[in-house]
Amino acid sequence: MSTQTKHTALIGFGTVGQGFYHYLAENYEDKNLSEIVIKDASKSRVPNNLNFTTKGKNVFQNKNINTVVELISDDKEAFNIVKKALELGKKVVSANKKMIAHHLEELVQLEQQFGGKFLYEGAVAGSIPIIKIINEHYAFDEIIEIRGILNGTSNYILTQLFEKEIGFEEALQQAQEAGFAEADSTADVGGFDALHKLLILTAHAFGKFILPEKALNIGINNIKKSDLTFAKANNLKIKLVASAKSHNNKLSLSVLPTFVDESDDLFHVKNEFNGIEVVSNNIGSQFYKGKGAGKLPTGHVVFTDYKSIENSRYTYQNIHLGKKIKYETRDSIWVYSNQITLLEKHIENVVLLNGSQGYGSIKIADLIKVKELINIHHVSIIALSDKVKQQLILQFKRKIEFALV
Amino acid sequence: MSTQTKHTALIGFGTVGQGFYHYLAENYEDKNLSEIVIKDASKSRVPNNLNFTTKGKNVFQNKNINTVVELISDDKEAFNIVKKALELGKKVVSANKKMIAHHLEELVQLEQQFGGKFLYEGAVAGSIPIIKIINEHYAFDEIIEIRGILNGTSNYILTQLFEKEIGFEEALQQAQEAGFAEADSTADVGGFDALHKLLILTAHAFGKFILPEKALNIGINNIKKSDLTFAKANNLKIKLVASAKSHNNKLSLSVLPTFVDESDDLFHVKNEFNGIEVVSNNIGSQFYKGKGAGKLPTGHVVFTDYKSIENSRYTYQNIHLGKKIKYETRDSIWVYSNQITLLEKHIENVVLLNGSQGYGSIKIADLIKVKELINIHHVSIIALSDKVKQQLILQFKRKIEFALV
Repeated sequence: MSTQTKHTALIGFGTVGQGFYHYLAENYEDKNLSEIVIKDASKSRVPNNLNFTTKGKNVFQNKNINTVVELISDDKEAFNIVKKALELGKKVVSANKKMIAHHLEELVQLEQQFGGKFLYEGAVAGSIPIIKIINEHYAFDEIIEIRGILNGTSNYILTQLFEKEIGFEEALQQAQEAGFAEADSTADVGGFDALHKLLILTAHAFGKFILPEKALNIGINNIKKSDLTFAKANNLKIKLVASAKSHNNKLSLSVLPTFVDESDDLFHVKNEFNGIEVVSNNIGSQFYKGKGAGKLPTGHVVFTDYKSIENSRYTYQNIHLGKKIKYETRDSIWVYSNQITLLEKHIENVVLLNGSQGYGSIKIADLIKVKELINIHHVSIIALSDKVKQQLILQFKRKIEFALV
Repeated sequence: MSTQTKHTALIGFGTVGQGFYHYLAENYEDKNLSEIVIKDASKSRVPNNLNFTTKGKNVFQNKNINTVVELISDDKEAFNIVKKALELGKKVVSANKKMIAHHLEELVQLEQQFGGKFLYEGAVAGSIPIIKIINEHYAFDEIIEIRGILNGTSNYILTQLFEKEIGFEEALQQAQEAGFAEADSTADVGGFDALHKLLILTAHAFGKFILPEKALNIGINNIKKSDLTFAKANNLKIKLVASAKSHNNKLSLSVLPTFVDESDDLFHVKNEFNGIEVVSNNIGSQFYKGKGAGKLPTGHVVFTDYKSIENSRYTYQNIHLGKKIKYETRDSIWVYSNQITLLEKHIENVVLLNGSQGYGSIKIADLIKVKELINIHHVSIIALSDKVKQQLILQFKRKIEFALV
């Protein structure tokens, strides 16, 4: 075990920064905290007697600082900080999923080139140690699929929509009032945040770095009451499911609202919780569930990274396999929509249920193409899990038989 | 990372031993396997061209052997092997939960005294890396409660009982035919195996070593069709739940068939799967689910221990806290029974439901006392989770009100 004294700069003192500080102080490690870089010196802070500074550049002039904990919200600024720190060979902890999803390949190269360390368990799935689990528990296994609920805010909203039978706008407002959604909710309800986390997991599980712009994310913002009515009538729930699958060296990715049935572990993930199913060759299917967000759970995970950074690093053991894997968007998936006819150019095997409500199959690449159209016309798109697809098809057949009788 | 060459003795070549060997060969590590100790040289083996030997004592005469993988079923013999190997400072991997539950405190002392290593993730909850998670993810958190389904065989039987509406004996026979239960099923259906695993987790989570003889385990062998009828009528399931709770430095332990409702994660753990809920101060409630048994899942976990043993050891970070914790059996729990009147000396707050069927509260210490009586008279004992207790009490009140109308 390393006995080098830690000299730490904490950059950012928002929700997660304060959570991290809480554990630092609780474990008598705040003595190693050289400075806390903040943007706005005029804000009142609790506690207010710490070494606050607005001069972020000093972090890199002070050669004693060997450990940097980056917890700011601006992803561009965060990238500059983390990049610079890694170029100086420092130990870096971050939880900035957007920044990491966009720059992970480069940051891993810098970590290796300059001998620093880079941990970021807090960036994915809040309190579930999924990156560590993939790195260590699946080190000698082959992951086939990861699917999960990775955004606590949208899961909270979906739970409220379902239980209170209210509309999306009302549920969003309630979530904002309860502190579960930010004023600008685009990243959460638009599925961007879930996509960023999925792409970080994809790098670890499949050794493949995919940029967010190249992948499909459809959010929950177009979900209608009629979609919920349809779900309930069929004993289903709607969840925002992020999925990465590898089959025959082809990788398929998506973030989509999805109908799930009672036998699906994701059906039982409620409110701000996250849940992740990992399917692998050797150990089969495993499921992990825990709080997806919050000052203390995330602050605690960041603190655990901080404590273990001397003695651990991510292995990225699958990068050599990733070179063989091709990212593929031509696979078709089955989706339901409240305006299925609007997608007519791209959709096949359409079954109309009621007015313009129906389902059919569509290529992921085509869904990426029509994403703008979907948002302009408020078209709901909800994927069908394999089991739900079979259930709906069976039902449809029964209806036809009934009509023929 | 250590670069010392591994010279490995594998002791035992049963189900898990063969599973372990499968991964050893798959990863080209079988070259480090010096010998495989077996008991019966006349049995045909696949593959049959390995270095089999029946001379177990040679393992300790061959000084080159630095790593011992112990996978035999006899717990007394296993203890002798592991003890001796640790006294010689060797690296040891085991999956023998009965042996470990009975001797962990001594083995940990030997590990520390002689500078060996001792890992045993495969002993608890099959493919779920729960020991590693407790050691690393909860290193700076305080665990309040661990509760889970830790025995795949009894969960398989309970699932069959429930879905097929058959009796216990028939379900046991089917499980044996399907290879999910051994000829001698006492350890599994009697709750002993679950208790052993619970006690290993208790050492890690609460720093407390409790001997199996001092703790309560009631199995599923007395569960009646009428109990299942009662469960179904109340939308409940019966699961064999192992639980360890610490409150105000008092530790409470039990393994009991338990009524769980749909909101409980354990409700959805089916067949041979295991599920574990961990509740902690900082990160709240987490849930882990995975295959609880089987040649390949367990063999894989043993192989992962084997691969990581140079660079990791269990921290037992809570042993110093364990000294403050008192093991307590005077707490009362609520239980249902098909013959509640047989427990009349010990049970309080009895509500009779139908004939001798009813529920009430009883001290854990008293349940330990009457364990033999329970088995002689085939008395079913099923604990009520807090939520289920409230539900039943409410129902009972409604019935009375209805009768009074």
